[in-house]
Amino acid sequence: MKAETSQVKVTIVKVPVPRSHPRFELLMVREQMVEGLARGLVVPEGLIAHGRGECFDYLIGEKTEFFALKAIRAAAASFLLAEKPVISVNGNLAALCARELVELSKATGAPLEVNLFYRSKLREKTVASALKAAGASRILGVNASKRIPRLKSFRSLAEAKGIIEADLVLLGIEDGNRVEALRKAGKKVVVIDLNPLSRSAFNASITIIDNVVRALPKLRLEIEKLRSASKQRLRREASSYDNREALAEALNYIRSRLERLSSNLASGRS
Amino acid sequence: MKAETSQVKVTIVKVPVPRSHPRFELLMVREQMVEGLARGLVVPEGLIAHGRGECFDYLIGEKTEFFALKAIRAAAASFLLAEKPVISVNGNLAALCARELVELSKATGAPLEVNLFYRSKLREKTVASALKAAGASRILGVNASKRIPRLKSFRSLAEAKGIIEADLVLLGIEDGNRVEALRKAGKKVVVIDLNPLSRSAFNASITIIDNVVRALPKLRLEIEKLRSASKQRLRREASSYDNREALAEALNYIRSRLERLSSNLASGRS
Repeated sequence: MKAETSQVKVTIVKVPVPRSHPRFELLMVREQMVEGLARGLVVPEGLIAHGRGECFDYLIGEKTEFFALKAIRAAAASFLLAEKPVISVNGNLAALCARELVELSKATGAPLEVNLFYRSKLREKTVASALKAAGASRILGVNASKRIPRLKSFRSLAEAKGIIEADLVLLGIEDGNRVEALRKAGKKVVVIDLNPLSRSAFNASITIIDNVVRALPKLRLEIEKLRSASKQRLRREASSYDNREALAEALNYIRSRLERLSSNLASGRS
Repeated sequence: MKAETSQVKVTIVKVPVPRSHPRFELLMVREQMVEGLARGLVVPEGLIAHGRGECFDYLIGEKTEFFALKAIRAAAASFLLAEKPVISVNGNLAALCARELVELSKATGAPLEVNLFYRSKLREKTVASALKAAGASRILGVNASKRIPRLKSFRSLAEAKGIIEADLVLLGIEDGNRVEALRKAGKKVVVIDLNPLSRSAFNASITIIDNVVRALPKLRLEIEKLRSASKQRLRREASSYDNREALAEALNYIRSRLERLSSNLASGRS
């Protein structure tokens, strides 16, 4: 089965949002995503995925919670221990946090690798250009020709000197099959995903249940904090993290929030 | 502040989905939404809203649950009691269930009224054409010039012989302000919305917490079942429904599902 590519004209209506709007930040992020579509970074399906993320972000309260902080700590330690870490970049990530990705790449020495589910030569180049414009010097994944074992179609494509040889891969909002295939290939996989019930979250080594926009700068700061720590300390930080436990904590947290929200509803507070 | 409209080229990559895919139906609906974007029915923000809905649909288990069935029963009775019911149609609804909307319109005598948040003359006409192609004979809301009181900008536009004079309005996934304004104008407002925490759900007379794709055919069937019922029976069915109670039930249901999912996680079942 082959993918069919077509181009369509889409009308974008930009409604100005006043700074005073109670949801100003959320709406700005949404606008960045729509701009990402216009720039060819984001595919329509990426917007749907973003909406799913928004919903889970609402459920966790739109803050970096304790379960995410624990995961960020473990991820930072793992980055410092890794010999060949790679940061995988998809269209949504490039649209929302190109600059942060570049800074993380510089802080860790991990190259950025373009890795698209809906892959086309044009989109590969568009994502790479956005990263370059944000200051990236080394970008992998354009014209990648190796394949991640146990994965079919375009999404198996990866670069030899990047994801294929990496011992640690950081992925934003990702497809569950790819996470599973990378784990089976023996890599440590760090996923940033707002959905604690996703297959990516379930299969990852470490899942940061948080919005990428908030999590990436925090991950970089944590790496700076741990940079001078001993290997022993880093190993302890990395190994004390339990992914299933973190996911269960996130789910329990959402449950308790829903409990509060539903009792507010019953008492008439909105 | 004025809205800015621009046209951009968007690449659509259509990946064939085999019938055997465990998420076949969900992916088909997603494909319909992307096609809706290509046809000019759906705006990019509509895709993000669809993603939020997907998340809540997952949380309620992707089935029409008891709280939705109660709301459907009350909504059916209210339709049969209404003197001037109107069905409000936005781009997402037109993309996903044009045919069902036409059937509901025929079953109830309620006209379809195009009602867009991101309104443009072109989009009005595109949505109206999609409804016409699905068999609609009477379509309101194109070149509407009246305004719903207490609402600003384009989203206040409505038709005199439609929403303005209606005593009942059915709305799919809607903006909370519009629901509130319609309630304040004295109308009965039936909302189909997957998010039990939305302002639309909170402000509606009746909220059907369900996917529009599942809820609309069920609403029509319920109207057929109740068609021969006495006015007294219909009034009883309509008045026995309590919106806050239904929302609380939906939230509790989601909470208990999360509890089950998180204990499965703890015990290693996925």
